[in-house]
Amino acid sequence: MASLRLAVDAMSGDHGLRSSIPATVSALNLNSDLHILLVGDKPSITLALAGEKFDSSRLSVQHAPDVVAMDDQPSRTLRTRKSSSMYLALELLRDGQVSAVVSAGNTGALVAMSCVVLKRLPGIKRPAICAPVPALNGYTYLLDLGANIDCDAQQLHQFAQMGSALCRVLDGRAAPRLALLNIGSELTKGTAAVRDAAVRIAADAKLNYCGFVEGGDLFSADVDVVVCDGFAGNVALKVCEGTASFIASQLRARFKKTVYGMLVGFLARPIIAAFQRDINPDRYNGAALLGLKGVVIKAHGGSAALGFQSAIRQAASAVRYDLQVQIEKQLEI
Amino acid sequence: MASLRLAVDAMSGDHGLRSSIPATVSALNLNSDLHILLVGDKPSITLALAGEKFDSSRLSVQHAPDVVAMDDQPSRTLRTRKSSSMYLALELLRDGQVSAVVSAGNTGALVAMSCVVLKRLPGIKRPAICAPVPALNGYTYLLDLGANIDCDAQQLHQFAQMGSALCRVLDGRAAPRLALLNIGSELTKGTAAVRDAAVRIAADAKLNYCGFVEGGDLFSADVDVVVCDGFAGNVALKVCEGTASFIASQLRARFKKTVYGMLVGFLARPIIAAFQRDINPDRYNGAALLGLKGVVIKAHGGSAALGFQSAIRQAASAVRYDLQVQIEKQLEI
Repeated sequence: MASLRLAVDAMSGDHGLRSSIPATVSALNLNSDLHILLVGDKPSITLALAGEKFDSSRLSVQHAPDVVAMDDQPSRTLRTRKSSSMYLALELLRDGQVSAVVSAGNTGALVAMSCVVLKRLPGIKRPAICAPVPALNGYTYLLDLGANIDCDAQQLHQFAQMGSALCRVLDGRAAPRLALLNIGSELTKGTAAVRDAAVRIAADAKLNYCGFVEGGDLFSADVDVVVCDGFAGNVALKVCEGTASFIASQLRARFKKTVYGMLVGFLARPIIAAFQRDINPDRYNGAALLGLKGVVIKAHGGSAALGFQSAIRQAASAVRYDLQVQIEKQLEI
Repeated sequence: MASLRLAVDAMSGDHGLRSSIPATVSALNLNSDLHILLVGDKPSITLALAGEKFDSSRLSVQHAPDVVAMDDQPSRTLRTRKSSSMYLALELLRDGQVSAVVSAGNTGALVAMSCVVLKRLPGIKRPAICAPVPALNGYTYLLDLGANIDCDAQQLHQFAQMGSALCRVLDGRAAPRLALLNIGSELTKGTAAVRDAAVRIAADAKLNYCGFVEGGDLFSADVDVVVCDGFAGNVALKVCEGTASFIASQLRARFKKTVYGMLVGFLARPIIAAFQRDINPDRYNGAALLGLKGVVIKAHGGSAALGFQSAIRQAASAVRYDLQVQIEKQLEI
């Protein structure tokens, strides 16, 4: 297997080095063909690596004096954060020194900087954000998650092409089952853009189109990829996360209400912990930015080391199985 | 207190008489000023009422030979289902024989028939569907849930006015905290319609506008009413329901995996049952169709008796506290 070089933005995200360093070390120890270029404040990185065990011949550090803040205005960062770890990591990708970038930083800034540094593929207005959502079959890829607000049928068709390519590459599914998110399954439902997209996608012989699904069908085992505009996708993702944490908090409160509840709650701990591991988004953390000239994987801003490591694993898979080539083939570029 | 007459569509919904009859009997027994006109197949209703205890002077039956099926095409029902329990119930409301209609039937048909039989308020394109979603403060009213797909700023403003009036009337909140659903809290986020709506709503002194919220904030205790177009609202509601049942099924499976889990699961049953009662949508079941010349409350199609009874209670509150007048005042009609 050819060697694999990834750039990891070591500084961004809520936890910065506290998640990027352990994730990098684990990834190196698990993958003997992986090389990582850590981008960030060199003295801090050196300090954080002290005492860690790994093959140092496969790790290098590229100094970056600045970092994009989570609350930076994305468009401003293009002028003000050119010496940030995020920007320099993208430049390494553009210059062919690495094959992919992983960052847990500010999503808007990552999208904006990727468009400027890497450029978009021909015909793509803005990269789409695609992430897996837990479902009965493991997970469902959902896109776009917020980069593209008003989408026409052509964009939705592109999302379908790129999302299918991603699922094929990362999960090895020959013909990912693809659906459009709508408010009913009848052909007459939804906006003109969604109805027109259905016609275009159904006519695309390279796609395995299954029709419309509703919000609740995201969790079924019947679809692998669900396509929607960035407004609906963002609402869906946030409602999903919000419902899960609402249920968790209500259930915890219920167990704490009585002594009996606290006792049973104590006994149930190992089961609840195993359940939480099952549906822990960190297990398959990592959103892909699709439609760029290069592979960019976004770890969740709040990623702990495990989530960050999943994002590194995704980036490695994307490179190994030629995500970029697959997407361009699907888009007929 | 003046007497209250409601028409109940006894036949529609997944459970028909099995939920409408016990709900009607309970509602009559709990509210001594309530009169109910059951609309549906008279022989079946008479049979279903046999053995039930209630004040028969406050119940009457209006025969309707037909019923709208859950999978009827809504627009077709306007021609084909004019002798259905749903259509006749709406005619009773139009003719002033009752003050509100409750139905668990086909939502699209109820919206279509309400527009034709009752008519819309001036300036309203289609009635908005508004329902409560469980949240930390009890629930949050969300609208529109799918009747209006492409909404302009004026429609979103109308939803804000009608949703606030509903929350004031049903929950007695003097100044319901109102928000617009968006994909971020910054003023620059979202579609042009949402941004324009924010300006209009902020300028409306009768509304207590709190800004943009994201999907996850539906469950917070900080807002009472959240406004969005029918596409986003429908996605949000379905994702919320889908996440809850996905989590429930995964958790059940975890408890069933080991003997220890089954034992703890058995011990946890009373706590889980109490928790399920807490978040049971049937406790506050009932979506309001807003923007019509009359009060129409839609019980969930799958409502058991408890849910149907909540919908009757909502309809009674809407009439008692003059929802119709409040909405017209808010819309300045």
